[in-house]
Amino acid sequence: MTTISIIGSGNMATAIGTRATKHGHTVELMSRDTAKAQALADQIGNGATVGAFGARPAGDIVIVAVLHAAAAGVVAHYGDALAGKVLVDITNPFNADASGLATTVDNSVSEQIAAAAPAGTHVVKALNTIFGHVLAHDTPLDAFLAGDGAEAKARVAEFLESLDLRPLDAGGLEMAHTLEWAGILLMGLARNGAGFDLALGAEVR
Amino acid sequence: MTTISIIGSGNMATAIGTRATKHGHTVELMSRDTAKAQALADQIGNGATVGAFGARPAGDIVIVAVLHAAAAGVVAHYGDALAGKVLVDITNPFNADASGLATTVDNSVSEQIAAAAPAGTHVVKALNTIFGHVLAHDTPLDAFLAGDGAEAKARVAEFLESLDLRPLDAGGLEMAHTLEWAGILLMGLARNGAGFDLALGAEVR
Repeated sequence: MTTISIIGSGNMATAIGTRATKHGHTVELMSRDTAKAQALADQIGNGATVGAFGARPAGDIVIVAVLHAAAAGVVAHYGDALAGKVLVDITNPFNADASGLATTVDNSVSEQIAAAAPAGTHVVKALNTIFGHVLAHDTPLDAFLAGDGAEAKARVAEFLESLDLRPLDAGGLEMAHTLEWAGILLMGLARNGAGFDLALGAEVR
Repeated sequence: MTTISIIGSGNMATAIGTRATKHGHTVELMSRDTAKAQALADQIGNGATVGAFGARPAGDIVIVAVLHAAAAGVVAHYGDALAGKVLVDITNPFNADASGLATTVDNSVSEQIAAAAPAGTHVVKALNTIFGHVLAHDTPLDAFLAGDGAEAKARVAEFLESLDLRPLDAGGLEMAHTLEWAGILLMGLARNGAGFDLALGAEVR
């Protein structure tokens, strides 16, 4: 079991933090809004702590759980405090009506984060194809991931497995954009009959 | 049970034709290469027939199972012979190394086909997130679809259900591009550990 740092205090931060503590991890919450981070830490309990926004995270895995448009800026704000960390980008960079993406090929949020992060930091995209409240159910689900750095990706995969998720590797960091499109697919299915109690997955035979 | 026309004689034409006849449909095969269509009809058996390439298809549902770069041209070649049909685009417009798409937003193969098709024809994207040999296994799988025309989409969904597939509607024709990205996700997962006995799906709770 390990310490996981989460930057953010919204829906996904709540779901991931809750699920992580249930599976024995220690969670550190960091938010620009310290009161909100404290409230979330109290809600999650199980030893969840609050870290100062912009300070070096306690965890080696840092979940970037802020809005997509803010993600690269937050990482730049942290700067060298993130050196050597594995950053997990969970964002869905939806356009205004969530019918398409605000990002383009070779400019996914993950790639934006990687460009803003200090040298030696790895970025892995994950958990953007599961709605937060579904993740919070704590039932087994598939979890796609993509990113550079075999060791970084292996550590994220191990973390996902510890949460009773099945990690499915989609490839290198350039595949993060494909996962962003998968977020649009998730939303399209949800809106067209499948409903929002939904996560993407794969049938492997 | 209904008559399904398939334009093409490759891997996907074989898988769809075989699965359709197993579930009681009559299959008509149409290919520029008549000998290949006849060989495939003989292989599929169960009353599979060969139709003349470019003639009016016997089926109300017409599966366009040719290479993505040829799809719109084939539909244009058929011209008015396709009037009123429901065209099913199953193509994956992969770039040279299948790491990304040859198509762009608002210019999916489905939208190219719709532009080339006669008025009153509907286009539905489907079956591009299941590898052909997996589809041929005849086991239950999820099948995403996207397209305009509620009635056309309902007919394709009914056809998919008859094949023991679970249709999951992703939205209108503009969502066909999202399904093309899902094809890239399928390929990325296959190449990065999941293997090629693979189909995408969704967990609905």
